[in-house]
Amino acid sequence: MKKQFHNLRIGILGGGQLGRMLLQKAADFSLDIKVLDPDPTAPCRYLAHEFVHGNFNDYDTVMAFGKDCDLITIEIEHVSTAALAELEKQGVAVYPQPSVIAMVQDKGEQKKFYSENNFPTAPFFLANNRQEMEDAVISFPVIQKLRKGGYDGRGIKKINSVAEISTAFDDPSVIEELIPFEKELAVIVARNTNADCRAFPAVEMEFNDEANLVEFLFSPAQISEQTEKQAVEIAIRLANTLKITGVLAVEFFLTADGKLFVNEIAPRPHNSGHHTIEANKTSQYEQHLRAILGLTLGDTASNTPAVMVNLLGEKNHEGEVFYEGIENAIKSEGVNIHLYGKKFTRPFRKMGHVTITSATLAEARKKAVEVKNAIKVISKK
Amino acid sequence: MKKQFHNLRIGILGGGQLGRMLLQKAADFSLDIKVLDPDPTAPCRYLAHEFVHGNFNDYDTVMAFGKDCDLITIEIEHVSTAALAELEKQGVAVYPQPSVIAMVQDKGEQKKFYSENNFPTAPFFLANNRQEMEDAVISFPVIQKLRKGGYDGRGIKKINSVAEISTAFDDPSVIEELIPFEKELAVIVARNTNADCRAFPAVEMEFNDEANLVEFLFSPAQISEQTEKQAVEIAIRLANTLKITGVLAVEFFLTADGKLFVNEIAPRPHNSGHHTIEANKTSQYEQHLRAILGLTLGDTASNTPAVMVNLLGEKNHEGEVFYEGIENAIKSEGVNIHLYGKKFTRPFRKMGHVTITSATLAEARKKAVEVKNAIKVISKK
Repeated sequence: MKKQFHNLRIGILGGGQLGRMLLQKAADFSLDIKVLDPDPTAPCRYLAHEFVHGNFNDYDTVMAFGKDCDLITIEIEHVSTAALAELEKQGVAVYPQPSVIAMVQDKGEQKKFYSENNFPTAPFFLANNRQEMEDAVISFPVIQKLRKGGYDGRGIKKINSVAEISTAFDDPSVIEELIPFEKELAVIVARNTNADCRAFPAVEMEFNDEANLVEFLFSPAQISEQTEKQAVEIAIRLANTLKITGVLAVEFFLTADGKLFVNEIAPRPHNSGHHTIEANKTSQYEQHLRAILGLTLGDTASNTPAVMVNLLGEKNHEGEVFYEGIENAIKSEGVNIHLYGKKFTRPFRKMGHVTITSATLAEARKKAVEVKNAIKVISKK
Repeated sequence: MKKQFHNLRIGILGGGQLGRMLLQKAADFSLDIKVLDPDPTAPCRYLAHEFVHGNFNDYDTVMAFGKDCDLITIEIEHVSTAALAELEKQGVAVYPQPSVIAMVQDKGEQKKFYSENNFPTAPFFLANNRQEMEDAVISFPVIQKLRKGGYDGRGIKKINSVAEISTAFDDPSVIEELIPFEKELAVIVARNTNADCRAFPAVEMEFNDEANLVEFLFSPAQISEQTEKQAVEIAIRLANTLKITGVLAVEFFLTADGKLFVNEIAPRPHNSGHHTIEANKTSQYEQHLRAILGLTLGDTASNTPAVMVNLLGEKNHEGEVFYEGIENAIKSEGVNIHLYGKKFTRPFRKMGHVTITSATLAEARKKAVEVKNAIKVISKK
């Protein structure tokens, strides 16, 4: 007899907050999950059936971890895709597929994929080093993105002139035309093992320029019906073109004249979908589980307007965490806190998030600013 | 400096499904929790920071478990209150208070408490054995409830005549006049360490007569505004009279002429509050955590009509669990499943629940009946 989902041995590569929220939901499906992470105090530490301390980017470690699994998924894309491909060959279901993860790992390959499949994206070229940037004919400013290894706002630089190339990364990069966007949007789409596809409504992100991390996320995005429709269509076409199993987060630039550009994608639950826990009929975490388990995808409709605020470690604070002002902040109604269980804070580290739900987006936004100002993630005094 | 909530060492007596859902929410507060349960495969097994295998009703076991805790709570009331009282004396915060738990453990004491404090409850007397029942002047039928140890529908009997007394329990019992009720209602109320009190809207329960367990729960209850107001008032007055810290579930009988009778109370998250996870702005689990941590209580308002269905083990099935029909049932929108991670099923064992949310209660009820018929919790074929 085919194993029912609760009898599968499931492995997750990565034990961070995305894995943590996945585990919180996985309990509702009675899933048997083990987690691999190099940090012995990772957020998933106490929520998995088994926590394995090790490097998810190391071939042998991933092989050893995966060999008794029926199904493997990820919560971070910087993993050994060579090991995942081998495990797939040996009969382990790996979702998202190793080939998709490998492509996404390389921002150069991502850009080529968009071009080759006619997805709108900022004009770009690939450079292997500074010299190749200097040799190229560029109209500044440009955005330089390291092809590999960038994460959480790292590995991205704005280059304003030829002179500034000397400050650029000297590694293989995507050099991208700066899109003068009006908004940044994201659509999370899920595709299950039956190739059914379903997208969440688009959300709008506001970044912290200093950290290049999302500071506020607004759901629903304040965009025209036509833009919403287009963004969702692109996201679904991306998922289908990739033939991905699992959730896919698609980030967009929206220009003043209504044009959409795909910025980047992530083949896993994503920061831009945290609000779905409270604000949508199905959360991105449940949707990912449904997708990889071959279950019917859930209803993605919005329940309520919501604003999500990332709780980032304060500058100049490093050490055991203290959440200043949190007791006050949650006095306000509709304030849903999610702390990630990280014992230590450091500047701009993602320590938690708060989702504010309210009858109107304007009211939620007002509260979100208050929450943002009220809660400071500092080191213990 | 006073420890912030995430630095408290918290213990829970009991590792069942109520503890499991408490732990799922506790992760959002980054709480450090250990759990004590006699079943090595208890639902909390893999979700606690530490799982201690032992008897929560044994004095020495509870003392050893609790001595390094800052705060202890329960998810079942059949615990050693002597140990909890001693731990309280030694400076451990115990919520709900041991005196409240001890009172609730004894249904005779519960009834005396209602009488003495003028809470409406069915007329009753206490009998120590069958002989005392025979000696009493009773107008049948009556309900006999064991004073101690009853749980999940066990320890309750209907006695229809003098002749049937021979089939009654021969132990200390409450003998209660049968209230010809029209509905059974429940109100969950929370009271925090600052004595703030907040109640969830009343819900309506439909029992499975054979198992004497809740089969369907409807939120909101279909009752008059006045009855709703009265039920909430009684629940709040109960919490305040008990001076409880934590959540308190209050079950009522409602008669055809609109009279409310307190049936029984439970000083912990309760089966009649499962729906609050999806259907209310704050869940009973978060509310319990807020109450015992001294945080402001959350908004209890209803988000959506909902019906909760308990998934009970089928009759004649004992063994490794298989959830027949679950893949089909969750094809329907608004169907939220919660499996408790129990490996083995037996007749009427609570194996999970499903909360169905919908725009109208009638629609949710229709779907709930379908779900109930679709999902069979059986032993593996």
